[in-house]
Amino acid sequence: MSQELMKKVVSLCKRRGFVYQSSEIYGGLKSAYDYGPLGVELKRNLMNAWWRDMVHRREDVVGLDASIIMHPRVWEASGHLAGFSDPLVDCLVCKERFRADKAPQLAAGQPAVLSFPDKGVAKRMHEQIEKQQELALERKGTELHGATAGDRGYVCPNCGSPWLSEERQFNLMFKSSLGATDPLGDVASAIEAGGLEGLSGRELRSKLEELTKPSAVYLRPETAQAMFVQFQNVLQSMAIKIPFGIAQMGKSFRNEITVEHFIFRSTEFEQMEMEFFCEPGTDDEWLAYWKEARIAWWRKFSNDPDKFKLRPHEPEELAHYAKGCFDIEYDYPWGWGELEGIANRTDYDLQKHAKHSGTKLDYFDPTDNKRFVPYVIEPAAGATRGVLVYLIDAYTEEEVATPRGTTETRVLLKLHPQLAPIKVAVLPLTKKDGMPELARQVVDRFFERGINAKYDEQHAIGKRYRRHDEIGTPWALTIDHESLSDGTLTIRDRDTMEQRRISIDGAVDEIERLLRVG
Amino acid sequence: MSQELMKKVVSLCKRRGFVYQSSEIYGGLKSAYDYGPLGVELKRNLMNAWWRDMVHRREDVVGLDASIIMHPRVWEASGHLAGFSDPLVDCLVCKERFRADKAPQLAAGQPAVLSFPDKGVAKRMHEQIEKQQELALERKGTELHGATAGDRGYVCPNCGSPWLSEERQFNLMFKSSLGATDPLGDVASAIEAGGLEGLSGRELRSKLEELTKPSAVYLRPETAQAMFVQFQNVLQSMAIKIPFGIAQMGKSFRNEITVEHFIFRSTEFEQMEMEFFCEPGTDDEWLAYWKEARIAWWRKFSNDPDKFKLRPHEPEELAHYAKGCFDIEYDYPWGWGELEGIANRTDYDLQKHAKHSGTKLDYFDPTDNKRFVPYVIEPAAGATRGVLVYLIDAYTEEEVATPRGTTETRVLLKLHPQLAPIKVAVLPLTKKDGMPELARQVVDRFFERGINAKYDEQHAIGKRYRRHDEIGTPWALTIDHESLSDGTLTIRDRDTMEQRRISIDGAVDEIERLLRVG
Repeated sequence: MSQELMKKVVSLCKRRGFVYQSSEIYGGLKSAYDYGPLGVELKRNLMNAWWRDMVHRREDVVGLDASIIMHPRVWEASGHLAGFSDPLVDCLVCKERFRADKAPQLAAGQPAVLSFPDKGVAKRMHEQIEKQQELALERKGTELHGATAGDRGYVCPNCGSPWLSEERQFNLMFKSSLGATDPLGDVASAIEAGGLEGLSGRELRSKLEELTKPSAVYLRPETAQAMFVQFQNVLQSMAIKIPFGIAQMGKSFRNEITVEHFIFRSTEFEQMEMEFFCEPGTDDEWLAYWKEARIAWWRKFSNDPDKFKLRPHEPEELAHYAKGCFDIEYDYPWGWGELEGIANRTDYDLQKHAKHSGTKLDYFDPTDNKRFVPYVIEPAAGATRGVLVYLIDAYTEEEVATPRGTTETRVLLKLHPQLAPIKVAVLPLTKKDGMPELARQVVDRFFERGINAKYDEQHAIGKRYRRHDEIGTPWALTIDHESLSDGTLTIRDRDTMEQRRISIDGAVDEIERLLRVG
Repeated sequence: MSQELMKKVVSLCKRRGFVYQSSEIYGGLKSAYDYGPLGVELKRNLMNAWWRDMVHRREDVVGLDASIIMHPRVWEASGHLAGFSDPLVDCLVCKERFRADKAPQLAAGQPAVLSFPDKGVAKRMHEQIEKQQELALERKGTELHGATAGDRGYVCPNCGSPWLSEERQFNLMFKSSLGATDPLGDVASAIEAGGLEGLSGRELRSKLEELTKPSAVYLRPETAQAMFVQFQNVLQSMAIKIPFGIAQMGKSFRNEITVEHFIFRSTEFEQMEMEFFCEPGTDDEWLAYWKEARIAWWRKFSNDPDKFKLRPHEPEELAHYAKGCFDIEYDYPWGWGELEGIANRTDYDLQKHAKHSGTKLDYFDPTDNKRFVPYVIEPAAGATRGVLVYLIDAYTEEEVATPRGTTETRVLLKLHPQLAPIKVAVLPLTKKDGMPELARQVVDRFFERGINAKYDEQHAIGKRYRRHDEIGTPWALTIDHESLSDGTLTIRDRDTMEQRRISIDGAVDEIERLLRVG
């Protein structure tokens, strides 16, 4: 059922212009997605709602939009260069590269059955293993029997082999090179100059790292660090007092090994993060405040608020710098999973950046005449995940009666009106008698007020209603013969399918009112 | 004067929270900038206005938001991998790396005077050159005389030396690596396996390129290509008819060698691009339409519309695929420069991607029952440059009388109200008698209508007016003693400084009206 639901959501996303695979005509790019005409509106509406509620409507939060490529020392200080990595292993049989911590568990000494796509491959691998491992295996069709798991505790997720390379740490940050430099040219020069002779293994690898380091830069794996790095600039230029927050939305990048569940985990994703700076001692209170504020925010756009929950981190689960943390989880079709984290990061980040940069990152409180390094509460949300959550939340199928006395399945996206890509469809009943012209005048009135309306005259009216149900348009306004004579139109509600007549002149005000009620 | 103006704009940007240097506490990152609390609002307002006018208000344009890292074959097809490069040269004397096409011109045989920061350096360089070049030079203070320019036609922009490395092409795209691969590890393995022995120079360099190619990906240098690559998906999912456009806003990245003029040219920048697909034969008409529409758009937010002009490209200046092109130029403090380009790209891009991907990228016109590859008109604007343009356009100093009978300089940003970061300041005259409470109620009414208002009670009222003049807040509402008794407040206009009384209950409507008038 839930796999079924995901399939339907993914299919609707592509069919109706919400989400496409990136570079699809070139075979796609692993775990990268493009947001189509409707997806970009949904994502913008969600992110704009966050900005409105977190920045504009609050006196105590200001915005920031920092560069994606920051100074590499930022990532030294934050710990991302040293610690932001997954343990990777290569299978010596099938050459699969995989994450050790996500591989199938198998206790030492347990029988490990190897499995291949066809007999031919199985035969070839059989010979290869017997030669390399000096071990007799038995082949049964596409499987090899007779091997046992080593003391690693896991086997290859692809073929089941227990013969694996050493684990090595793989950094999740995308690395690039800035400036008029040519890192591979520098490596070539070093080889030509004989500077790498006699080196091997780790020594050689780390020499290559050193050669390319002067120009190395990284794509940010989170937006948060910019708020710490620019803390003093914001403080000084905005003359703002603690407690206050700095908010940022934007793209982050992680070279994920494991990709899963459509846009749930993609290499390139949008975050909505806020760092809230407060006086030490008030941090527990603020953590309690923000966790409640944030889950209430997610729930207010949902049809099913019970599918969101707060999960406190267990002490052993906490990051070493965090004093407390709550995840906002959503009940995805595959189970509960993270949507936002609200963490008490203490003064860890400001202290680290102060130390690495040699700049004082503290706050002077003029009222109490004291100086301190603020503690930080961080509500860090995934905007891309938010899009997925509300698509799942909105996807609805229901049986409805047809005029012929039968029933049919109606697919609709019950998106919150503030999130819906198109707020209102304006439909001339037919293409005649001046209805299209009048409908276009109505559309123009919506445009003037900045409301995303859509004129649509293709196909029969019932089909047009269904089309807009499926993309979540909350209201359809139909211009019919009566409209021409009495200045009214019908307004149809997406969820109830009820229609009523209102005046054309009052239509924009009515939709604005409905949008505010939400 | 104009250098003076730029200095003032840059200083105001940092002082008042518009633009900071990226990673400033770590010494900054070359040509990277962060947008502070006011800068992010200005940039958002500009980009949202573009989206509203180019996407929402038009039936014939839809949006897209594609991933920054696209399939590498996209850049093979577009020509960016082969051709998107600058000619780079190293100075053999001072080691400066520079762009050959931007270096100081000097005809062969002309005297080339070398110049250094101090006598010590000049002395050392003198010895070094005489040794290496077997040439006698004469030192006069910090200068070396007696050299002549070679037949390159240029010298080093740093020291004036004519002794230069060969030119080599430097690709402007940022390169990274996707997936669980370790390109330097692969290079290390190849070295250990002896696979690079006996290679040198270009051979070695290209072997290294080949070794790292399987995982190579690039940060997009423009947003445009995604619209060609997703052309069929948009066409099919949106059931849209030609002529229509696909619009995208977002970050692009260019590893620029020459950086200049603050945020005018930065390695990371925001674009606002639209590809308008039309039938061949109608393309000249659409180019004419879009160039006029676009310059009118820029002018409508400006105090000085004459500072924008359309410049047609000369035939020899046109990209090889373009049939016609106009630049919208702005009269920057350093002279006329590009802000947007409107190009007739013909069917070049769709043809290229069709060929490289093996996918048909054409259009079937059901009305005339014919099939064709559309031509494309592309209005491609720089959002980051737009921010700079309007900051320059808005920066104003004027002499105003003080109550003491003297004059003082008032600095104000005459930003268009739709672009202004804060729309309205709400100021209690004093912190007593319930004025702050009433002012906060007024602010809340603005928040409810989604208007970015700002409560401000710090310092004397005159100082607060000046502070908001300087950040471009178009209107200040002051709550005074009269407000408490008669339900009115004063509204002050930023540009004229005129004040008038309006009712508190009508304040939000009045500001909404003024915002619409613009």
